[in-house]
Amino acid sequence: MYCLLKCAPLILAVAVCHGWLFGDFVRKQELNEISLWPIPQKFQSSAVAFKLSPASFQIVHAKQSSAGPSCSILENAFRRYFEYVFGDLKSRKKVYDSDLVELQVWITSADPECDGYPSLQTDESYELSVDEPSAVLKAANAWGALRGLETFSQLVYEDDYGANNINKTEISDFPRFAHRGILLDSSRHFLPLKVILANLEAMAMNKFNVFHWHIVDDQSFPYMSRTFPDLSQKGAYHPFTHVYTPSDVKMVIEFARMRGIRVIPEFDTPGHTRSWGNGIKDLLTPCYSGSSPSGTFGPVNPILNSSYDFMTEFFKEISTVFPDAYIHLGGDEVDFSCWKSNPDIQKFMVQQGFGTDYSKLESFYVQRLLDIVAATKKGYMVWQEVFDNGVKLKDDTVVEVWMGNKMEEELQNVTGAGFTTILSAPWYLDYISYGQDWQRYYKVEPLNFPGTDAQKKLVIGGEACLWGEYVDATNLTPRLWPRASAVAERLWSDKSVTDVGNAYNRLAQHRCRMVKRGIPAEPLFVGHCRQEYMGL
Amino acid sequence: MYCLLKCAPLILAVAVCHGWLFGDFVRKQELNEISLWPIPQKFQSSAVAFKLSPASFQIVHAKQSSAGPSCSILENAFRRYFEYVFGDLKSRKKVYDSDLVELQVWITSADPECDGYPSLQTDESYELSVDEPSAVLKAANAWGALRGLETFSQLVYEDDYGANNINKTEISDFPRFAHRGILLDSSRHFLPLKVILANLEAMAMNKFNVFHWHIVDDQSFPYMSRTFPDLSQKGAYHPFTHVYTPSDVKMVIEFARMRGIRVIPEFDTPGHTRSWGNGIKDLLTPCYSGSSPSGTFGPVNPILNSSYDFMTEFFKEISTVFPDAYIHLGGDEVDFSCWKSNPDIQKFMVQQGFGTDYSKLESFYVQRLLDIVAATKKGYMVWQEVFDNGVKLKDDTVVEVWMGNKMEEELQNVTGAGFTTILSAPWYLDYISYGQDWQRYYKVEPLNFPGTDAQKKLVIGGEACLWGEYVDATNLTPRLWPRASAVAERLWSDKSVTDVGNAYNRLAQHRCRMVKRGIPAEPLFVGHCRQEYMGL
Repeated sequence: MYCLLKCAPLILAVAVCHGWLFGDFVRKQELNEISLWPIPQKFQSSAVAFKLSPASFQIVHAKQSSAGPSCSILENAFRRYFEYVFGDLKSRKKVYDSDLVELQVWITSADPECDGYPSLQTDESYELSVDEPSAVLKAANAWGALRGLETFSQLVYEDDYGANNINKTEISDFPRFAHRGILLDSSRHFLPLKVILANLEAMAMNKFNVFHWHIVDDQSFPYMSRTFPDLSQKGAYHPFTHVYTPSDVKMVIEFARMRGIRVIPEFDTPGHTRSWGNGIKDLLTPCYSGSSPSGTFGPVNPILNSSYDFMTEFFKEISTVFPDAYIHLGGDEVDFSCWKSNPDIQKFMVQQGFGTDYSKLESFYVQRLLDIVAATKKGYMVWQEVFDNGVKLKDDTVVEVWMGNKMEEELQNVTGAGFTTILSAPWYLDYISYGQDWQRYYKVEPLNFPGTDAQKKLVIGGEACLWGEYVDATNLTPRLWPRASAVAERLWSDKSVTDVGNAYNRLAQHRCRMVKRGIPAEPLFVGHCRQEYMGL
Repeated sequence: MYCLLKCAPLILAVAVCHGWLFGDFVRKQELNEISLWPIPQKFQSSAVAFKLSPASFQIVHAKQSSAGPSCSILENAFRRYFEYVFGDLKSRKKVYDSDLVELQVWITSADPECDGYPSLQTDESYELSVDEPSAVLKAANAWGALRGLETFSQLVYEDDYGANNINKTEISDFPRFAHRGILLDSSRHFLPLKVILANLEAMAMNKFNVFHWHIVDDQSFPYMSRTFPDLSQKGAYHPFTHVYTPSDVKMVIEFARMRGIRVIPEFDTPGHTRSWGNGIKDLLTPCYSGSSPSGTFGPVNPILNSSYDFMTEFFKEISTVFPDAYIHLGGDEVDFSCWKSNPDIQKFMVQQGFGTDYSKLESFYVQRLLDIVAATKKGYMVWQEVFDNGVKLKDDTVVEVWMGNKMEEELQNVTGAGFTTILSAPWYLDYISYGQDWQRYYKVEPLNFPGTDAQKKLVIGGEACLWGEYVDATNLTPRLWPRASAVAERLWSDKSVTDVGNAYNRLAQHRCRMVKRGIPAEPLFVGHCRQEYMGL
């Protein structure tokens, strides 16, 4: 009946309306239903399908919305999702009318946050209702609207005649965890801006909301500091071609912001700092071989005031360059052997009464660093060792659990001590193996550790980490996607969403969707995409 | 002295000539020396460096050469390698004179083979002498010249001022093994033409000379047959977008020919043929569940004459489409369960006196197929099972050893029976793992099996196989390179070339060279390339 009313004028559409195609419609609709990724918290769909024509369909601000055309986050998103939905079709002539004339985006809070930054507290929930003649997307702010727009775009499917369809649908959605991150490492290999931006794009397609930028490490220091230009001048792989200029960093932050993604930079100390030593004299501890310096250097020298003076200036800059409320301070894998070899450090240990317990020296350093960073009004994240070594932490510190062994015990301890935590241990995506390892990532239940409800609430999310030892611009993107998508659904969807077979079908389609949108996401297994990747 | 004479007029060049840079020159020269890949059989180089200017340097036919401007293989190669050597520089103004004015390419045989195809017997040897004022590349035919041009291009290095340099060098080179192949699988995933061509390009950079095209399999049949169009019409993932048209196939063959690469297509039967069954009625064996057909199908039906009639017609076409002297007939992993279930097959087994030994039935099929293909005057390659099952083979059959367990025993047996063999067992590059697995591929010694010298001579080479279950256009190229480069050197260079540390340094540079040339070859480990990959 619906078909007769709507499609009669067009031969193409009439053909679509024939009874013998209805079964096909239902099959498509089922396919489509299951191709949402990550799957929404509440979802209801019917077999009734509406057509969308690129010539007439629009994404608009709802009349009641607190946001309007001056909201560039939304304006950009409208354009982006229009292009995702219609792709190359957008230049085609009008061959059929839209059943659905528009998607109204309705921001309900007085402040749509169009000029703000997302935060840990951001409300990303949204409600989406697709019905004739208008679909309505309701969210408290622009961030929730971004998530809803992604979902809307995933609901649209192409029928066999190339027409875009969407089924009558009601969705009420919100993330299970507030912190859903991807760690990329631009030190082991330099990642050209293009690669970072493309991966932010893919993150948005998967509703990730934190880019944990492990920007510097032992191997290179590509961050160009205004205060200490020698850091990259002498510590980057190349001082011009392999650095992130202030403008580059700004662009990453803005590109991320437009997609509701926080950028948390990591400046890991006192270990993992070899490259820092090239540009800053006396920052690193001189290692000794017997009674004389060996010419090599260890972690940041924790006994010199100059080290703390440097950190004060440096983190003052970082705190202004990066708008997020958090900075990741690292603190992992501090190798004590160099400190142990150095007679000045030995003397200091005695003076401080540390005995031979070098983790006390590490704590001494970290403690002072935390005070320095706290003075910039930033919160901090640290790797689990900082907690394990008993450093006194501010209450709002986020402890990142990365060690695979005793992970559950660690979650128990960290939350038991009252700290919020994020989990990355099961999601080190740099470890690759033959076959479908995404299933292993998918099966992780982050709250599966002994603890009270209050403790469970302290787990605010997780991160998929792609460390850079073996990846650069040539292979990063296909290695990350769609493997990280498994983590995306685990962190967004309800705890009960655990069916791997169902996930396989949706994820296979989701990866083809990413491919269609220009992201070279690798295949899960044999098969094909309607549109294969056309880059190289 | 040399410097004063040559560079005086140019400020830039004068700076380069200063004594304090000489040390740098030597360092560069050493770096360059070790960046050849695969390393030539005989190589001598001095610290004397010549400059090459894009404005005046030329690659030309030597006066004595039997080849001239009508030799399109060489003309194309001259252009290609000129571009590799000078890259973006080629449009720059002349800023310095060339010390080396030309590379003369001298083909010594009466027939330069410009219009031919490479074969197993092709002489790929060459001699390269780089000295003022001309470098000379001498080869019996165009194929050897192609290998020499690649080596020449690898000898050129950029100094700190952007000038191209090449050191005085003498090289005499030839491959250790005649068959150095890459297997790509376009059935588990369709590989767009662009991907195949890019990998042929990369193969030439690594002196590979065989593209083993595993073109069809169970999952899809993308080869468009003129004789049996239904094969791809009904067996491809999509009949238009996911097929190789006759023109596509021609292009692959010609693109490969221009790079001295043979294209050996594999049409694997009687197993691995599910996709064939879609287009050809009664080709596959109907499997039974109890006393009635289950609706599923097994290997090619070996008891029907129609199967052999089809194969006769089909391979008649294949033998004309693919110019190589060999066709790969597969013959691996035949699953007997379906044959066993089928009452007609059971009857046939009794009639033939095969008892319950279904490998006799397999042999029966393969034997007839080999006769069919032999009638087309083609040689054939088969997977090891065909030999293992005792099928009578023509003397010039090439047996491909792919099973990892008992590989040495298999090599001993195959060569002991007098058959030539190629080895792929240690080089299944679809198996991935964390870290530098290229070293494992590199350390393989193909002749390390018990056997006489005569037996060793029967090992004519090897293949790196990238099966397609988990790769498509999104991730194939970085997954293949530079891992396959390890196999390239093993198959080309002398047996004594086994130093992994030395190989690491050269390969790291070689992979950056591939990146510079547009191939997204992934990194070996931490580090950077002067020019990072600029695709995605």
